[in-house]
Amino acid sequence: MTAPPLAATSFLATRRGKRERLVAAAVETIYARGVERTTLADIAAAAGIPLGNVYYYFKTKNDIVRAVVEAHLSDARAMLAAVESAHDDPRERLKSLFASFAGQGEQIARYGCPQGSLCTELDKLPDGPGPAAELLKVPIDWAERQFSALGRADARDLAIEVIARYQGSALLASTLRDPDLLARESARVAAWLDTIGALAAEGGGA
Amino acid sequence: MTAPPLAATSFLATRRGKRERLVAAAVETIYARGVERTTLADIAAAAGIPLGNVYYYFKTKNDIVRAVVEAHLSDARAMLAAVESAHDDPRERLKSLFASFAGQGEQIARYGCPQGSLCTELDKLPDGPGPAAELLKVPIDWAERQFSALGRADARDLAIEVIARYQGSALLASTLRDPDLLARESARVAAWLDTIGALAAEGGGA
Repeated sequence: MTAPPLAATSFLATRRGKRERLVAAAVETIYARGVERTTLADIAAAAGIPLGNVYYYFKTKNDIVRAVVEAHLSDARAMLAAVESAHDDPRERLKSLFASFAGQGEQIARYGCPQGSLCTELDKLPDGPGPAAELLKVPIDWAERQFSALGRADARDLAIEVIARYQGSALLASTLRDPDLLARESARVAAWLDTIGALAAEGGGA
Repeated sequence: MTAPPLAATSFLATRRGKRERLVAAAVETIYARGVERTTLADIAAAAGIPLGNVYYYFKTKNDIVRAVVEAHLSDARAMLAAVESAHDDPRERLKSLFASFAGQGEQIARYGCPQGSLCTELDKLPDGPGPAAELLKVPIDWAERQFSALGRADARDLAIEVIARYQGSALLASTLRDPDLLARESARVAAWLDTIGALAAEGGGA
């Protein structure tokens, strides 16, 4: 393929820039207000883009919600990859993941977990959360791999436990408006992770 | 005070009956759809009461949401009292509470925790969850009393942990549409509770 002429390149770059601004605005607005209380007009205003132009990129609010889920997933994968590069030890990786959640204690105490609160709302839809379920599956699968690397036969259960503790703590922090709750839970989870030794496969059953 | 004449008594009984039907319908509808997606017309229809009559009992959706929160609180207090009567041992009470959540695994896998998903939605309101925060405070305070009775100086942290595990598990069960997830977590929480011994006050600090 030959390169497009310069004018077309700029046009494509502007299109991409506007779409990215809309998605970033949608991520913020939906996090702050929830899906149902957010209108396309809210998102257009937050992005500083005329409402009429929004329809060029997204026909329906569902299309925007799908793009928001994809943006969250992309961020989550990047964050997990960064944790993996920073730490070789699976135990330290798990601690680091929880600590990074706790580092967002202020905003979580105000609006909850960005991914968890989105799933909570979408879970009630007749068709269920759809692709948004990946927002929880991805960190659970990642945590399972870390516990497996620690030699635990019950890695799946432990992964469910650690992600459930984070999600539950995020809800409690936000309902009680307590930004320190996640930091306290993070310290307790780190202490718990230190007690986790290898469990042989035959010991892993119930 | 003298008793009201019979006709007035029946009238009051009918009023109370209609209000109770409306609140019960609101509890169900809001649980299934969320606050924002529920209209007064939905609630009237579910209660089999003409919409015009609803305004006699509730002027706004906020009034109904407040009544729904009170109904949940009343149910939660009755449930905790029943657990206390059924078991003298605080450890068994905590296990029984979690098991009773797990007993609702099917509906939680479909709609989430009735109280937790309501808080998640209300937490995003500019004024916060308001009285709905009691829906989490009441079980946390109750669990804290049980851990205190077990002699634990870190009873508050343990109470946060057990309620966070339940709330997080409820979210995971619903997002993954896995009705058995809560039963597995309940068994694991029971095993964890069995390892909880008394911790002297001086050992309770971080």
